[in-house]
Amino acid sequence: MAARRMLIIGGDAAGMSAASQARRLKRPEELEILAFERSAFTSYSACGIPYWVGGVVDGPDALVARTAAEHRARGIDLRMHTEVTAIDTAAQRVRVHDREGGERWEGYDDLVVATGARPLRPDIPGIDAPGVHGVQNLDDGRALHDALGKDAEGLRAVVVGAGYIGVEMAEALVNRGCRVTVLEQAEQPMSTLDPDMGRIVHEAMCGLGIHTVTGAEVTEVLTGDDGRVAGVRTREEEYPADLVVLGLGVRPETRLAREAGLPLGASGGLLTDLAMRVRGEENIWAGGDCVEVLDLVSGRTRHIALGTHANKHGQVIGSNVGGGYATFPGVVGTAVSKVCDLEIARTGLLEAQARQAGLDFVTVTIESTSRAGYYPGARPMTVKMLAERRTGRLLGVQIVGREGAGKRVDVAAVALTAGMTVEQMTALDLGYAPPFSPVWDPVLVAARKATGAVAADVRTR
Amino acid sequence: MAARRMLIIGGDAAGMSAASQARRLKRPEELEILAFERSAFTSYSACGIPYWVGGVVDGPDALVARTAAEHRARGIDLRMHTEVTAIDTAAQRVRVHDREGGERWEGYDDLVVATGARPLRPDIPGIDAPGVHGVQNLDDGRALHDALGKDAEGLRAVVVGAGYIGVEMAEALVNRGCRVTVLEQAEQPMSTLDPDMGRIVHEAMCGLGIHTVTGAEVTEVLTGDDGRVAGVRTREEEYPADLVVLGLGVRPETRLAREAGLPLGASGGLLTDLAMRVRGEENIWAGGDCVEVLDLVSGRTRHIALGTHANKHGQVIGSNVGGGYATFPGVVGTAVSKVCDLEIARTGLLEAQARQAGLDFVTVTIESTSRAGYYPGARPMTVKMLAERRTGRLLGVQIVGREGAGKRVDVAAVALTAGMTVEQMTALDLGYAPPFSPVWDPVLVAARKATGAVAADVRTR
Repeated sequence: MAARRMLIIGGDAAGMSAASQARRLKRPEELEILAFERSAFTSYSACGIPYWVGGVVDGPDALVARTAAEHRARGIDLRMHTEVTAIDTAAQRVRVHDREGGERWEGYDDLVVATGARPLRPDIPGIDAPGVHGVQNLDDGRALHDALGKDAEGLRAVVVGAGYIGVEMAEALVNRGCRVTVLEQAEQPMSTLDPDMGRIVHEAMCGLGIHTVTGAEVTEVLTGDDGRVAGVRTREEEYPADLVVLGLGVRPETRLAREAGLPLGASGGLLTDLAMRVRGEENIWAGGDCVEVLDLVSGRTRHIALGTHANKHGQVIGSNVGGGYATFPGVVGTAVSKVCDLEIARTGLLEAQARQAGLDFVTVTIESTSRAGYYPGARPMTVKMLAERRTGRLLGVQIVGREGAGKRVDVAAVALTAGMTVEQMTALDLGYAPPFSPVWDPVLVAARKATGAVAADVRTR
Repeated sequence: MAARRMLIIGGDAAGMSAASQARRLKRPEELEILAFERSAFTSYSACGIPYWVGGVVDGPDALVARTAAEHRARGIDLRMHTEVTAIDTAAQRVRVHDREGGERWEGYDDLVVATGARPLRPDIPGIDAPGVHGVQNLDDGRALHDALGKDAEGLRAVVVGAGYIGVEMAEALVNRGCRVTVLEQAEQPMSTLDPDMGRIVHEAMCGLGIHTVTGAEVTEVLTGDDGRVAGVRTREEEYPADLVVLGLGVRPETRLAREAGLPLGASGGLLTDLAMRVRGEENIWAGGDCVEVLDLVSGRTRHIALGTHANKHGQVIGSNVGGGYATFPGVVGTAVSKVCDLEIARTGLLEAQARQAGLDFVTVTIESTSRAGYYPGARPMTVKMLAERRTGRLLGVQIVGREGAGKRVDVAAVALTAGMTVEQMTALDLGYAPPFSPVWDPVLVAARKATGAVAADVRTR
């Protein structure tokens, strides 16, 4: 018997990162690590599913970072097809339902809640019809992959939702030769961007041959005589479809936590301290898509489902359970995506988010290129920057462009983390050579213009 | 007559950026702007010359950001082919030698010294023979371009020096079909990197078909019966050559400044304050390749010839002369380059520089990839990181890899500017999606390992 038992609910990024890190720090005789995963998959890259479906990468095995057997070989007792159905915090135990149908209680010294997120599914007629696909897990990926078959050329695909998942799935389906329509309820795709930047994405998506309809509220999935999907109805229109993909984003999966009385935020995500310990608990930890994280720019908590955060959370939890000390200080809201050769990135706050946070700001938008203008492959990009009025503190950056645009957001992400002003950013010593950047990097061009806007605003107020 | 006169020596990046920025702030009747350039070219991208020679970009016009006529149209009195031969600070005037051979004095209220840099030329026999090419300015570029002609296939080219200019010229000549040998006196190419990282570059260059010889001190340029270049002799060997390119780096061009008694640093570069005002002077400013800049990591001044700094210096000088207030806080030593598909980047201090600065440090080196490992086009990269012992303050990063490697150095450049520790860096919210990054960005992987090294070092000391 080990001295202590770490029990993990959920065998994906956060849970298994926590397990791996704790195992690095503690030997099996010091710490037993027991993890329950209700599905057939562990430690997989859900972010990779669109590329598998699109035929760009192999799947599903290539998307599994570490198999259950590999985890077990490292002294982590990972039980697949095993669902936790209740948490009893008073008795420090969880109710377990295993694949043989058995039910039992399992005790813990430290509990890690890593239950992830569940995809949004609109409650409309036909939503469960064959041919309607989610893209949450590898089973979903396989079902969609099989549905597309060897030759998907000319299939009519409707993607519901034009957020990250929606646009990535649009690319995947275009790559497979489908005729793709994306239906988005909001007034522009990528509501993770301001409307003016979203409009650029909208135009570019149309240019890529993706029929993108905004302000389109889906009211029904239409089915044929065979009961299969035949189309999608919005308030205004009907769109015939051979298949429908739901890309509407996710919500924290925290039913267990809620039933156990653990504290949840406005989004339904678990609330933790910076050590990823559930607030008010001594030995319950939570991380990944089921928690809210501190937004370092607004000072508020937010729900952001992203594998890179989940991995960091797990790392922090594993360090702390393993007897070390680590914290996850928070996020600045960075995200990057692409649809075909269009790159879309943001970090920090949108205008609406800054307003909600009670911040006064100026905005600037500039056009620049990914390389020196005269260098082959220099591609245009648009950079929008928000800076706090009077102080000039950087509040956010959004970038839409082509190759070489997206990862430039990282410069702004670090600057946000450091609390830099846009004026301080103008002097940043970024890498310059003609194949890599214009002599003024696009982020610096935006920072210069933002500095001017802050100064002009100060003079005229 | 304008109220004041701004006089600029040198019509390239720093000088003309200063002119342009001052003109934005002051009307011609408030400020006369007079600039002298001894060559036929103004505001050109010297960094673009290797790509012109390599046939990747057009030249020389495409490399000129703004022509003399364009400057004049904006109210900047730019005189080409006009050399300043002396500065008389007591009388606030400079001696001018114009293209007609006339000599005169021109007075100033504000003087901007933007005399740039001169290329190193070893003082060896044959160095001035026809067929030996520098690559400092557009005349050099044209001469080399003409020498290669329409078909350079099979020409034997020797590049002397394997720093940034040397490796970029090696790429250019490979692109033109030359058989290229690079001779480097140091024990590895890219002495802007630590030896272990330089060795990776060395192997990669050889893999690219560039014969790269290190520890090779060039003692003579050999000439044929026609007086033209026939080869290069080192202490050990002779290398036959149809043409020779000198890529040995540059030194500050500060003869005028020295003769005028202005303060110079150890490298021979002018010393300024953060406003780019020459130290001890009220109305003399200097910027670009002729100055030393403050290294924010070591706290010492260094000479770094880079167009991006020159532009920023000019911007700052122009703002200050134009009645505004601006500073150039310093650099962290970022540089990025490529040779064929090999990307090479660094920021902060090398091991030797950290030692010189009296800093105690740990180093780590990691291997990662530019995209998620399973995503097509994921290319390997090596990241080396230096962190201060005990505190964990980031001191430097070096990256060698393929596509997607080089510009990742920007994250470290911003972190250095902000004075972050490697532990703080592990939590950075960098953009993640499979086409852009592994779930742990390579810079974060290095930061994690460096954090571990700092912690282990603390425990074992």
